[in-house]
Amino acid sequence: MNDFRLVRTCCDSNARAGNLETLHGIVPTPVFLPVGTQAAVKAITPDDLKEIGVQMLLSNAYHVYLRPGMDVIEKMGGLHRFMGWDGAMLTDSGGYQVCSLARLRRISEEGVLFRSHVDGSEHFITPEKAIRIQEIIGADVIMVLDECPSCSDEFSRVKEAVERTCRWAERSKEAHTRSDQALFAIIQGGVFSALRRKSAEKLVAQDFSGYALGGLSIGEPKDLMHSMIGETVTLLPGNKPRYLMGVGSPEDVVEAVSMGIDLFDSALPTRVARNGALFTWQGRCNIRNAAFRQKEGPVDLACGCFTCRNFSAAYLHHLFKCRELSGYRLASIHNLYFMNNLMTVMREAILNDSFPSFRDNFLSCYRPPDEGVRLAQKRKGLSAWGR
Amino acid sequence: MNDFRLVRTCCDSNARAGNLETLHGIVPTPVFLPVGTQAAVKAITPDDLKEIGVQMLLSNAYHVYLRPGMDVIEKMGGLHRFMGWDGAMLTDSGGYQVCSLARLRRISEEGVLFRSHVDGSEHFITPEKAIRIQEIIGADVIMVLDECPSCSDEFSRVKEAVERTCRWAERSKEAHTRSDQALFAIIQGGVFSALRRKSAEKLVAQDFSGYALGGLSIGEPKDLMHSMIGETVTLLPGNKPRYLMGVGSPEDVVEAVSMGIDLFDSALPTRVARNGALFTWQGRCNIRNAAFRQKEGPVDLACGCFTCRNFSAAYLHHLFKCRELSGYRLASIHNLYFMNNLMTVMREAILNDSFPSFRDNFLSCYRPPDEGVRLAQKRKGLSAWGR
Repeated sequence: MNDFRLVRTCCDSNARAGNLETLHGIVPTPVFLPVGTQAAVKAITPDDLKEIGVQMLLSNAYHVYLRPGMDVIEKMGGLHRFMGWDGAMLTDSGGYQVCSLARLRRISEEGVLFRSHVDGSEHFITPEKAIRIQEIIGADVIMVLDECPSCSDEFSRVKEAVERTCRWAERSKEAHTRSDQALFAIIQGGVFSALRRKSAEKLVAQDFSGYALGGLSIGEPKDLMHSMIGETVTLLPGNKPRYLMGVGSPEDVVEAVSMGIDLFDSALPTRVARNGALFTWQGRCNIRNAAFRQKEGPVDLACGCFTCRNFSAAYLHHLFKCRELSGYRLASIHNLYFMNNLMTVMREAILNDSFPSFRDNFLSCYRPPDEGVRLAQKRKGLSAWGR
Repeated sequence: MNDFRLVRTCCDSNARAGNLETLHGIVPTPVFLPVGTQAAVKAITPDDLKEIGVQMLLSNAYHVYLRPGMDVIEKMGGLHRFMGWDGAMLTDSGGYQVCSLARLRRISEEGVLFRSHVDGSEHFITPEKAIRIQEIIGADVIMVLDECPSCSDEFSRVKEAVERTCRWAERSKEAHTRSDQALFAIIQGGVFSALRRKSAEKLVAQDFSGYALGGLSIGEPKDLMHSMIGETVTLLPGNKPRYLMGVGSPEDVVEAVSMGIDLFDSALPTRVARNGALFTWQGRCNIRNAAFRQKEGPVDLACGCFTCRNFSAAYLHHLFKCRELSGYRLASIHNLYFMNNLMTVMREAILNDSFPSFRDNFLSCYRPPDEGVRLAQKRKGLSAWGR
């Protein structure tokens, strides 16, 4: 299982349509994975995900390991059963969270020592332990433990992280025992082309089931992210899935699909939803805006989501004004439906050779948030977690 | 429409089974109405209510009047359409909220002047305006404006409130124009038998479609509440529905059904759910308790609710520990299902002449919260709102 089959490549871009075959269903790509940080996609339940059409989600091994803890997950027969999700699942190894959330981390060749952001308890994670944790969790796709440098780190520091991540990838592969799980490697290298290239070449030579691009969308300018993606993708084998970690926004996803990325995950659609920002084909709108107070129709007339089928924009506006919990759920459903629909539409466009015009159309209609504001928010968010 | 038909009275208690016929469906009684304070039952959506089996809910005219405001409700064609609820609905007049939530209230014969608890704006509500507001909202059952004294008020103060409430009831009746809405009067009188009796007699003489018992369960001891209910019910016509406002807990509801009450409303089941307290036939349990950390089965094996059918107690425990929003929704669904099921079971017991043994059985198994703790919490809650 866990085979990736390339179905079609776009005539005029690097966009690809494929199928990722897992024990929990065949996942058509390109695909966006909602993030279930703490064994739950915030504000919604698995039946909501099914209704939206989600076929695969991401869970954070770091969070699940700390809470509820591996004893609970093991007793409950894995994370699928614990959270009531029978679709496909990917877990990240915790490398990114250890680097961004945990306190007092100390990285050595053996592994990483850190304190839990929940209760301050001390933990030591090795590549082997990260694999063991993910085998107990039981996701369909699991990730090697990586070291994710900050976007402001200098060349020598990033080089060190790239080399260590390659050695850890080898150890992860050796430690991996479950044949029903695919193991993906993570390409690091910050914003340095030479390091990205080196990382990709080394990891491809180690022959993993798929390749992730890590350490992007962490505060670097967008054009730099795009050039890193473009340069890296050319080095990756065509028959293996490519996963851009932590991305993200509709506009970034469309660009990255065009560059040949197959999988995405990000908490952004649900996080901004809880702040009242709803995706439309014209860009984000904020439901708290007074313009919605008396709006009788749905937020987006063209949208087929549960929220837009059942509730007016005026009602959603009211729920947000009153801080009613159901508002957060309904907005999250809308944004995840938008992302899922966007992926479906892109796949169809790739299959019928119309992707480039879809992409150009989308990018000319969709007004992204101001880049300066976006970067400032991103950096503020990251620094709040101690980096 | 809005006829009440008595189907059966218990052989050995005052418990009754009936049907309340409304334009939005026939509601079997006894019935418990979940509370949709701000045009929403907290944490859940109308499809959740349908799935639970809820047939009627309560909305607070006071809250809806302040937010979103009557312009929005009127433009959206009433509250049913605004919030997406096509079942039966009852609105209270706002009398209780004005007395308990609003600031700087000043009651005169004409009406009540108060400041909004939301933004401090000043409002003047008369009996006629309370009816007009409820006609725009469009509930199936609406209430007269009443004056609800505190449970610590002395006899002369409560007497004054009773007399004014009777005069306001007359004015409310004259102002009421929509024949598709039933208008209920509210019996006040605090914990004074003579005043309860006087209030009931006067209002029954005015011939309303139904009678509510107001000003109970607001901090007085339970045995006093029970004796007030018992004494009042004997004065009410058998062919009209009887509604005990703001009650409540499973044990109180069972006792009050036994005394001849048909309708109940309370935010308690959803409020305690959001604190992690879940109803079972043995009493409330708190899902945050460490005993649930590894519990594989549902909270209540006998429960048929969405939550218990789909999630383990261990998972609910985890959601509460992590403060995940879906935990509040799943717990609210469970408690409302419990209440709805309790009402269904009581109705069946009344219909097949087994209610007294059901009641005794229930009360011997169900362990209510400690009375001292309960009263202290209740008074603390009320004083937090300025009384």
